[in-house]
Amino acid sequence: MRIGELSRRAGVSVPTIKYYVREGLLPAGRLTSPNQASYEETHVRRLRLIRALLDVGGLSVAGIREVIEAIDDPERPVHKVLGAAADRVVPQYEGERGDDLLAARAAVADLLARRGWRTDDRAPAAEALAVALAALESVGHGAFAELLDAYADAAEQVARVDVDYVARNVVREELVESVVVGTVLGDAMFAALRRLAHVDASDRVFGAGT
Amino acid sequence: MRIGELSRRAGVSVPTIKYYVREGLLPAGRLTSPNQASYEETHVRRLRLIRALLDVGGLSVAGIREVIEAIDDPERPVHKVLGAAADRVVPQYEGERGDDLLAARAAVADLLARRGWRTDDRAPAAEALAVALAALESVGHGAFAELLDAYADAAEQVARVDVDYVARNVVREELVESVVVGTVLGDAMFAALRRLAHVDASDRVFGAGT
Repeated sequence: MRIGELSRRAGVSVPTIKYYVREGLLPAGRLTSPNQASYEETHVRRLRLIRALLDVGGLSVAGIREVIEAIDDPERPVHKVLGAAADRVVPQYEGERGDDLLAARAAVADLLARRGWRTDDRAPAAEALAVALAALESVGHGAFAELLDAYADAAEQVARVDVDYVARNVVREELVESVVVGTVLGDAMFAALRRLAHVDASDRVFGAGT
Repeated sequence: MRIGELSRRAGVSVPTIKYYVREGLLPAGRLTSPNQASYEETHVRRLRLIRALLDVGGLSVAGIREVIEAIDDPERPVHKVLGAAADRVVPQYEGERGDDLLAARAAVADLLARRGWRTDDRAPAAEALAVALAALESVGHGAFAELLDAYADAAEQVARVDVDYVARNVVREELVESVVVGTVLGDAMFAALRRLAHVDASDRVFGAGT
């Protein structure tokens, strides 16, 4: 198909498509004349993936590039691709938090050991968790960390159904893509559900009086 | 304290502090001379809250302003403040998704009815969920929506402990702040835990062979 049809099918403007090609997110089309290229169904699918990661997942263009490189690299083991998706966002927290962060890292290492999770306590997600805990401490809500095990129970349940879903896909390319989609869009899905459940639970507790 | 000490205590530069005051995120200091102001402990706390929402929660300055207005408005019922925090991010998804989005909205309305959640299916979080489901459909992973109830179970568990935590705070200002902090930093905490649980679950399933 021509770029105009690709644009219409994927709901992405022509200049944006060209930008994604320049940025290495989308493979170039096959040249059919010096200034005309032809695109395939795989381009539509890839564009939709990029938009989903960008708009719903909130990834940056650089983050998407990393994730897409992981998808397209047939040498990369599947569980490493999951790692690449997980590593894309490590929040930076600045300020007077040296001791808080050290204590938070120790709390994360304890948690991982306690639950027997086969994961590295130097993984970016472990650091992201430590940063979140340190931030809670810094705003006077260190006690929120008491909920860590309840959160970990819920995260384990969700991770189990996620991996079962991913394991249904037998073709490697689909499998890896489903990991990425599930990781990123699953976050968005859970955050929205948590807010809806909050409104319900909060209304039951606070709705009547305050 | 002077602005230099405030800057050091909160780990935020002086120009950034002035920017937050101009943007209405931070109350101005009390003027002690025509070009010198004095700041209190509440300023340190507020600055740390702003940085946590910005750096860990990923909120925009405009989003933080909304949340802070909700915190500072004593007239606003507590469960409405939760709503304001929930409403801050509604992902925009563009493209050829009209029918997908309508179907996704219907699926969300079904879910809310099925679970008996006392929440509006036109709430921004409901729309955010519909957008995530439509995005999954658009990238060929509509089947991921089969996990919706497993996710909702986990979200309910987490929301219950969140609200119990919040209910511990008896002073309104602290209560409202804890809702905001718990909502935003709780998302970051859960996302990090889910990734760690993924790595563990994925390693168990895929680590050996692929």
